[in-house]
Amino acid sequence: MADLPEAMQHRRNFLRKTAALAGGGTLAAAGAAHAAPLAVAPNSREMGRTIEEKAYGMPSKFEAHVMRRRTDVFKNRQNWSDWSMTPLQHQPGIITPNGLIFERHHAGTPDIDPRTHKLVIHGMVRQPLSFSMEDLARYPSVSRFHFHECSGNGLTDWLKPASTTVQQTHGLLSGVLWTGVPASILMEEAGVDPKGKWLLFEGADGSAHARSIPLEKVLDDAIIAYGMNGEALRPENGYPVRVVIPGWEGNTSVKWLRRIKVGDQPWHLRSETARYTDPMPEGKWRQFSMVMECKSVITHPSGGMKLGKPGFYEVSGLAWSGAGKIRAVDVSFDGGRNWREATLEEPIMDKCLTRFKIGWNWTGAPATLMSRAVDSTGYVQPTVADLRKTRAIVGFVQHHNAIQPWEVTANGEVRNVIGQA
Amino acid sequence: MADLPEAMQHRRNFLRKTAALAGGGTLAAAGAAHAAPLAVAPNSREMGRTIEEKAYGMPSKFEAHVMRRRTDVFKNRQNWSDWSMTPLQHQPGIITPNGLIFERHHAGTPDIDPRTHKLVIHGMVRQPLSFSMEDLARYPSVSRFHFHECSGNGLTDWLKPASTTVQQTHGLLSGVLWTGVPASILMEEAGVDPKGKWLLFEGADGSAHARSIPLEKVLDDAIIAYGMNGEALRPENGYPVRVVIPGWEGNTSVKWLRRIKVGDQPWHLRSETARYTDPMPEGKWRQFSMVMECKSVITHPSGGMKLGKPGFYEVSGLAWSGAGKIRAVDVSFDGGRNWREATLEEPIMDKCLTRFKIGWNWTGAPATLMSRAVDSTGYVQPTVADLRKTRAIVGFVQHHNAIQPWEVTANGEVRNVIGQA
Repeated sequence: MADLPEAMQHRRNFLRKTAALAGGGTLAAAGAAHAAPLAVAPNSREMGRTIEEKAYGMPSKFEAHVMRRRTDVFKNRQNWSDWSMTPLQHQPGIITPNGLIFERHHAGTPDIDPRTHKLVIHGMVRQPLSFSMEDLARYPSVSRFHFHECSGNGLTDWLKPASTTVQQTHGLLSGVLWTGVPASILMEEAGVDPKGKWLLFEGADGSAHARSIPLEKVLDDAIIAYGMNGEALRPENGYPVRVVIPGWEGNTSVKWLRRIKVGDQPWHLRSETARYTDPMPEGKWRQFSMVMECKSVITHPSGGMKLGKPGFYEVSGLAWSGAGKIRAVDVSFDGGRNWREATLEEPIMDKCLTRFKIGWNWTGAPATLMSRAVDSTGYVQPTVADLRKTRAIVGFVQHHNAIQPWEVTANGEVRNVIGQA
Repeated sequence: MADLPEAMQHRRNFLRKTAALAGGGTLAAAGAAHAAPLAVAPNSREMGRTIEEKAYGMPSKFEAHVMRRRTDVFKNRQNWSDWSMTPLQHQPGIITPNGLIFERHHAGTPDIDPRTHKLVIHGMVRQPLSFSMEDLARYPSVSRFHFHECSGNGLTDWLKPASTTVQQTHGLLSGVLWTGVPASILMEEAGVDPKGKWLLFEGADGSAHARSIPLEKVLDDAIIAYGMNGEALRPENGYPVRVVIPGWEGNTSVKWLRRIKVGDQPWHLRSETARYTDPMPEGKWRQFSMVMECKSVITHPSGGMKLGKPGFYEVSGLAWSGAGKIRAVDVSFDGGRNWREATLEEPIMDKCLTRFKIGWNWTGAPATLMSRAVDSTGYVQPTVADLRKTRAIVGFVQHHNAIQPWEVTANGEVRNVIGQA
């Protein structure tokens, strides 16, 4: 028997006395159903679809609304530097299907032929090396579950609500099982000069997107990845090869990877001076803020949903931290005055999405739901007000890991109330 | 720095002296590459594809060979009772993408409308209940990683090789993160009569596929599942709702679930007398052999592949047990005379695929590779000869969990040698 949340137990005891259910309903003809077989199901009267040989399977036609979407808030003037967002409100568990993983690119998605693509390691190394995809397949591999988040996740919704759904507020986030070669193995093959401290990762796309990453982080846990969620990388996610920098902002995990150059200092690339820097008080800008801080969000219920009748609901969401594991998630139903600790679902993995759950008996009165995560370093997810004490929140600011409030109105509508709760 | 397998370390030391690589190659113009930038990548000279609004993402066109396939060995005369197999040779990690999960049905795949579908619990219960999909969404949920295997996996290849690839020999196997309601919660809602000991699960498909399952197993860990790998079930995998019976043969996890009936004994359905029974010595047949026994297979290298030049290879595969967790996997390179323990990749989960890996320096001589798994109950994966001591292997027999040998010939071809090694 599974353990039941306290709220559910309470309902259960109540229902035992009344013989009515909030979830399932008693059968209209309960006695008859007990004694006689049920009517034959309509689909049992006919044969179904046969197997389509060599087809790649697709979702049910009844799930066509579960799609990646562009934001409706922040419109691009052109589509070359663009993004789409993951429908977190429809995602159970901690893995995002590859067809729904968010996209972000600066010059479109290239279609790279894996038979000719090469990855080069050069710069301050003993011997520059070139790897084909076949070469990489011969090296020891590793598969690890990690969250993947764009540093711009949530940048439209700091001080007041601009977005409706959690897909719009938090959908630059996915959960992935990455597979590839530990970057440390390839760096040792090349032989890094003792004076080498930074690595340049550059993509083979139209923007030649590049980042400077400290050697120490790469040797610790970076993966030269060719697989995601049990198959090859998808084109929009870096096919045929990318680097994965676990827990750091998504753009550091350079896609369509073509070279790694070893140097003794960062390159101060455009993505490290113009893009991907954060405004600070007194007109200063912060560079190299690459760790994605501890964060959480309630995905069910979330903005744009409408609750049915009052009674038991499971409140569920995702928590993650670029600094380690999730240690706890607290949930408030009254806008942050009182908090209860949620259940965390196993396995709880390093720099990985963690699913939290807590039972809730909704009385039908208005309520404001929030979640607050704590990671294994002791860092507590802040409010927007907390973040404003040290940072300048002006315009579309990156690294927004503040608590997200959702208001449930008396008629069951769920609304984004960031900055208002 | 990642730990290296011993075989790789040995190669590393050798390469340091020779400055040549088996995996990556030194750059043709190493000195020039060191000093000057590399040539611009072809894909960096043009813009890529823009984002297709509201599209469900698909694999690269260069991965079109990675597909589910019917077996070439066991031909159906019609396609109503049919199956397709997962391309395990192309699957990294322990999760199978939903588009590649094996299919098995007895009367085709129905397209069930979730807005009208109902799940009924009746029979020996205090109150028969009916649940819509919306009702089920209100109950507490659970997400768990489990392997999923058809009891017929491998039935074409017992005493001699009939199949070429691991997709054909072992591809009725997938790894899935299931999400749904613990069945125990719904059974408690209905209130099982103390004399109720077995549950009938029936599907709403054209075959009305049904199985009898002991109540005890269902209360232990069965899931009334509506989600898989981060989205709704796929039509061929039971959309909109199925039961998942972790670790038991796939057909017990009845798809397109429409009713659960409580009784005091099994129903001895067609799937429990004709289908899904196992021949035993002296003309007897075994019923209700539902646990999938401990098993493993090397997926890389595997049948139909061709190795390149001698040197380092990572040998990798999957291990699983319906009785618990994988405790160890041993690998032999000489047809079972000597064994070395492989590395198991975390997380190691209950009744879940576990990835094992071991380094191998292929000298270029013929070799026969095998893997042998041990689970947390102490059960050791048997050989075919072991299984023949207690069972009758005549024709297409289910529950084949014997050790799979792959021969590597001197020219690098990898061949299925079941019954010959």
